[in-house]
Amino acid sequence: MAGSSFGNIFKITTWGESHGKGVGVVVDGVPAGLTLDETDIQKYLDRRKPGQSKFSTPRKEDDIVEILSGTFEGKTTGTPISLVVYNRNQKSKDYSEIASYYRPGHADYTFDMKYGFRDYRGGGRSSGRETIGRVAAGAIAAKILHTLGISLLTYSRAIGPVEIKASPAELLAKGHSTVLTKISENSLYMPEEDAAKKAQDYLEQCMKKCNSAGGIVECLITGLPAGLGDTVFEKLDANLAKSIFSIGAVKGFEIGDGFASAASTGLDNNDAFRMNENANVEKRTNHAGGILGGMSDGSPIILRAAFKPTPSVASTQQTVNKSGENIDINIHGRHDPIIVPRAVVVVEAMTAITLVDALFINMSARMDALTNFYHTFYHT
Amino acid sequence: MAGSSFGNIFKITTWGESHGKGVGVVVDGVPAGLTLDETDIQKYLDRRKPGQSKFSTPRKEDDIVEILSGTFEGKTTGTPISLVVYNRNQKSKDYSEIASYYRPGHADYTFDMKYGFRDYRGGGRSSGRETIGRVAAGAIAAKILHTLGISLLTYSRAIGPVEIKASPAELLAKGHSTVLTKISENSLYMPEEDAAKKAQDYLEQCMKKCNSAGGIVECLITGLPAGLGDTVFEKLDANLAKSIFSIGAVKGFEIGDGFASAASTGLDNNDAFRMNENANVEKRTNHAGGILGGMSDGSPIILRAAFKPTPSVASTQQTVNKSGENIDINIHGRHDPIIVPRAVVVVEAMTAITLVDALFINMSARMDALTNFYHTFYHT
Amino acid sequence: MAGSSFGNIFKITTWGESHGKGVGVVVDGVPAGLTLDETDIQKYLDRRKPGQSKFSTPRKEDDIVEILSGTFEGKTTGTPISLVVYNRNQKSKDYSEIASYYRPGHADYTFDMKYGFRDYRGGGRSSGRETIGRVAAGAIAAKILHTLGISLLTYSRAIGPVEIKASPAELLAKGHSTVLTKISENSLYMPEEDAAKKAQDYLEQCMKKCNSAGGIVECLITGLPAGLGDTVFEKLDANLAKSIFSIGAVKGFEIGDGFASAASTGLDNNDAFRMNENANVEKRTNHAGGILGGMSDGSPIILRAAFKPTPSVASTQQTVNKSGENIDINIHGRHDPIIVPRAVVVVEAMTAITLVDALFINMSARMDALTNFYHTFYHT
Amino acid sequence: MAGSSFGNIFKITTWGESHGKGVGVVVDGVPAGLTLDETDIQKYLDRRKPGQSKFSTPRKEDDIVEILSGTFEGKTTGTPISLVVYNRNQKSKDYSEIASYYRPGHADYTFDMKYGFRDYRGGGRSSGRETIGRVAAGAIAAKILHTLGISLLTYSRAIGPVEIKASPAELLAKGHSTVLTKISENSLYMPEEDAAKKAQDYLEQCMKKCNSAGGIVECLITGLPAGLGDTVFEKLDANLAKSIFSIGAVKGFEIGDGFASAASTGLDNNDAFRMNENANVEKRTNHAGGILGGMSDGSPIILRAAFKPTPSVASTQQTVNKSGENIDINIHGRHDPIIVPRAVVVVEAMTAITLVDALFINMSARMDALTNFYHTFYHT
Repeated sequence: MAGSSFGNIFKITTWGESHGKGVGVVVDGVPAGLTLDETDIQKYLDRRKPGQSKFSTPRKEDDIVEILSGTFEGKTTGTPISLVVYNRNQKSKDYSEIASYYRPGHADYTFDMKYGFRDYRGGGRSSGRETIGRVAAGAIAAKILHTLGISLLTYSRAIGPVEIKASPAELLAKGHSTVLTKISENSLYMPEEDAAKKAQDYLEQCMKKCNSAGGIVECLITGLPAGLGDTVFEKLDANLAKSIFSIGAVKGFEIGDGFASAASTGLDNNDAFRMNENANVEKRTNHAGGILGGMSDGSPIILRAAFKPTPSVASTQQTVNKSGENIDINIHGRHDPIIVPRAVVVVEAMTAITLVDALFINMSARMDALTNFYHTFYHT
Repeated sequence: MAGSSFGNIFKITTWGESHGKGVGVVVDGVPAGLTLDETDIQKYLDRRKPGQSKFSTPRKEDDIVEILSGTFEGKTTGTPISLVVYNRNQKSKDYSEIASYYRPGHADYTFDMKYGFRDYRGGGRSSGRETIGRVAAGAIAAKILHTLGISLLTYSRAIGPVEIKASPAELLAKGHSTVLTKISENSLYMPEEDAAKKAQDYLEQCMKKCNSAGGIVECLITGLPAGLGDTVFEKLDANLAKSIFSIGAVKGFEIGDGFASAASTGLDNNDAFRMNENANVEKRTNHAGGILGGMSDGSPIILRAAFKPTPSVASTQQTVNKSGENIDINIHGRHDPIIVPRAVVVVEAMTAITLVDALFINMSARMDALTNFYHTFYHT
Repeated sequence: MAGSSFGNIFKITTWGESHGKGVGVVVDGVPAGLTLDETDIQKYLDRRKPGQSKFSTPRKEDDIVEILSGTFEGKTTGTPISLVVYNRNQKSKDYSEIASYYRPGHADYTFDMKYGFRDYRGGGRSSGRETIGRVAAGAIAAKILHTLGISLLTYSRAIGPVEIKASPAELLAKGHSTVLTKISENSLYMPEEDAAKKAQDYLEQCMKKCNSAGGIVECLITGLPAGLGDTVFEKLDANLAKSIFSIGAVKGFEIGDGFASAASTGLDNNDAFRMNENANVEKRTNHAGGILGGMSDGSPIILRAAFKPTPSVASTQQTVNKSGENIDINIHGRHDPIIVPRAVVVVEAMTAITLVDALFINMSARMDALTNFYHTFYHT
Repeated sequence: MAGSSFGNIFKITTWGESHGKGVGVVVDGVPAGLTLDETDIQKYLDRRKPGQSKFSTPRKEDDIVEILSGTFEGKTTGTPISLVVYNRNQKSKDYSEIASYYRPGHADYTFDMKYGFRDYRGGGRSSGRETIGRVAAGAIAAKILHTLGISLLTYSRAIGPVEIKASPAELLAKGHSTVLTKISENSLYMPEEDAAKKAQDYLEQCMKKCNSAGGIVECLITGLPAGLGDTVFEKLDANLAKSIFSIGAVKGFEIGDGFASAASTGLDNNDAFRMNENANVEKRTNHAGGILGGMSDGSPIILRAAFKPTPSVASTQQTVNKSGENIDINIHGRHDPIIVPRAVVVVEAMTAITLVDALFINMSARMDALTNFYHTFYHT
């Protein structure tokens, strides 16, 4: 089955394994005329680079992106943009041990059950390196959104049990650039100094115990007009749910108050509409997280993804081998004790990709807009 | 944009509004030779029928399904199955008031923003009646799964703040049919008597206060072999996330330990593999909820959906009207104080539809299985 | 497999068998705000009605269409439009004979090979009645095109060996309405009196010999701007090829000079560009049939479909039965000696559906158009 | 819009321009366990290599394919296979002249109309080099078919007005390998010595006149079981029509007798079924070209594609420039006087890709086959 494409009229197709020749993506459906070069993409990729703190793998990955097609004289041409990052730092180490058993929490067993065998080097297709293509494509999507005035703000809400205090609304009130600065001040991408400090302490304890941690990534989308998405299966939140849940290690997804709304009441959870000083419709609160009935409502969209702890821990674990024997294993090698900080940009990328597709598909929603577009664009 | 189809090679397309002539679904990709008649579908539809308790709208909806195509002499023919439920009980009441303003928590405002106007009668396309097509299609999907030995067990885990105590594993230990009987004993579809009693008390309080409640639906899938789903975008959990999040009022989705896993550690969250007495690979625990790396791992799949409280409450609420004035409104009419019990079968239906598509797509995953199928089926 | 949907963001899904309860279509992706009622659709359906001349089956089919969803107060709402035509005239005749053997030229044998059995009543899903859904959907697509100034002119170019003399350019020179009048003057929908007369003589000879005829349908599209379609797989001609070839009995498809261009030379076949008196780019000739490199070039699009002769003939034929015996058969019942005149509107419908999808998808082709649309429509 | 992917569960995505860094394809949905290395693909690519005769461009294109992902230890893993061919021979010549005008018969004008500008170097995305990705992917598809006993035989039926005499049936009677040998004996890939000689003379005349030629490619598929394809939009012939028409320069497509059947009669065109000596159902003739009602009927499938003459001719031509002036141009550079021989392998590749997708999708057509597969494969 073909499972490596995402999107409809803005579509990405990723490829590549951890220890193959490289990883990459074909981004199809980018409008012609967008200014684009490698630096636009590289700065996104650099945000997921490991080795930036003691909490990410010391493995050096100089992931340098190359544009192979789809641009001409610094602009996109409307044809597919092929992006590649060659694998440079793959040690030809001995994988025979890891090939022989199933690591708990990894895709080893399910891969063998589905395909009969697997490329066991460094996780193969299920490696975190698979997200390089997503992030590269997301850089293009984010640039399109930025051109239209739509912004994404993504950060670690929680590292293990340590959560920031500020609500999304409080963070937005501080201003986008203030929060961005805060985030860049710690390698965990947390927008609160206190929480970041506590989280670092927590992670150090984890590492001492040869253990690992999970966490929660939150993404806020501002500047999105009302009416994007659809009423039934192509709800904007449904597509965001799929896009975020397609990231490895995600076990939960929420919009707005999410699971908390299940325990709330209608009166508490409903967001009252009010006219604001500019005579625009506003919601007084945003429990809904910016989506009503599957469509954006003009408020900031708030989404959260729960990441499980890194399954590769240094402690001894129980598992079975391919001969059907119960064994004890110790996974060696370089592993992130937490993937959440590196996942922040992946969540942002998938969100941006989903939004651009929704935006393009929405253009034919109304006869009046269609007719106006048609006569303007085709000069008929 | 076309947003009313779901699935790839098992595909459903729903249509219909609350107060139009009817609602329905075209189910395409059903294999030929499945025994099927209206009663298979009707018994699923009856599970979402309102008026079965004081906690659902007293509105009478005798939703009688009719098969218009795709079966012959009691069997499916492989051609699309068109199912229709005509709307019978739509009062020609005066909707001019509701047409003039935006109900908080509803899709009124976003509909107008997207389409310029809306069919405001009873929620139009965003009505709960839209799920009739999903449930009807889900009945067919569930029958296919049942034929193969795959079962679904779905119930209310929480009604407002009242949650059942038993874990999925404990419920499964009691046996599928025992739990089913428990569920059928209360109109809230909770598998624990105590919790059901408390939930009823809670809902009565809500109703007295002209308020409403939300809750959590949980679905367990047993009998599914390992290896269904895919590694990247077509992860089984990603598709389940989309299918469940496409149901109205869903604000959160989890697999296995979900958000709780974000605060856990690798050692606690990893499920150790062990050989069982039948020399099969098993997991000792199931924090993963039956999915590893996007593919089923042979354990029961556990998913949860958080539903927000019914937005239509009898209390006075603030909103704006289409003239841009702040107003107070009182929503009249018959409304469920909670939709969770009626959503149970909708969650089950969407889950079944997603699984059947995953199952069909997976058939070409391996050359050995493909070759064997080819020579067996085509007698070459 | 799901094979009854066509289109991407303007998508139709048909259902129904010849002798089931009815046939229908769900049209999804229609922009909100299009004026639409049953008469818009009925007048298209009436063009494929049998019994209008001695060359079509005397079977009475009063195909009355009903809109079940997707419109409100005479306008489309943006939600799926469900259209149904109930089967009224299906005689409960004895089909046991036809069930026992495979009619030459029909889908009986392939149906049994694929599905194991078939609904043998009147051709089942492979009946010409399957096109009712296409024509109903095509009526909506054609109305959208008409609103934008795009017109379709479709007629019989050839009935058996009898072909009209006028080229597409000559017909267009006469004016759209003049040709339409000509077409309506004969039941074969030929735009030339002489040819129509000869074709009628030819068909009468066919009928006397208990034989049948095929023919060629031609469709001209005018008013389409340049730049629709795409460069690689979504070429406008590739999608037209699929849409037309999906009509039963089509065995050939051409654009512009088609097969004749294979025997031509570059110098003869190239269409020179010239500036016209209005300072617009024009082609002096139109061998290309309005498409260059998969995209419309602003000239009229010319397409042709070859239909095989009706396979149901009254003469004795050889075949095999389901017991594996060679037998002689005589097919009884009411059959069109030629389906070409009734196929004219089906070709037009599928063409219109394909164009609308291409038009919608094309809206996000350029950053300048996208940005302009975005700020105009969302007032940002 | 995303227009560079083809197929559903066997899906290819091509990328690349004539004078960019390279061209390539991602092949997704290849079953795990297929033996595959670069030589399997290279030998297909070599069949489209120019410079093999005086009738193809003397331009040297050493197109060396590299597998970047999706294989492990010589076998496919089930993950996407990324294939790249770097452009090596692109002269940095001056393209300013060609950039300034629209070449007749090329996509220059339509590209500008759609995207606002174009990569004018060597045809950009509309270059014949775009087919490299198709052919590379087709090599994998053909290998899958070969494993199952399905063969493709593809050749030039006509070069300009010179056509071979043998019918498809006569060629098949000679035996697949005999015909293959014949085809390889002349650089025009014609399976008849006489016709090949005449075609060469014809092409030499064309070249002397600074002119070019078109032709017809024919493809025969043998070994395909009955029942592949579908009844309505996913007809096997409809998908073949799209796949073949998506190749540049194709202007016509036929199955079986194609356009000739339009002038035939039912009695002449119907293929009688008969039991053969092995007690299998056979057709006595094959006017239908192996497809009835959209599904394969077990006979060889016969398809034909008409290619227009190469638009780049050395003679002076009329056109307009981007300033809106009428001008005369002379196109310089290396151009094939005919592309038909090089297109033979492209037609074969697209056919193979289409068949594999149809084969995979068909696996869930019947409950009996599904149930048997399920219990065999999953050992339940």
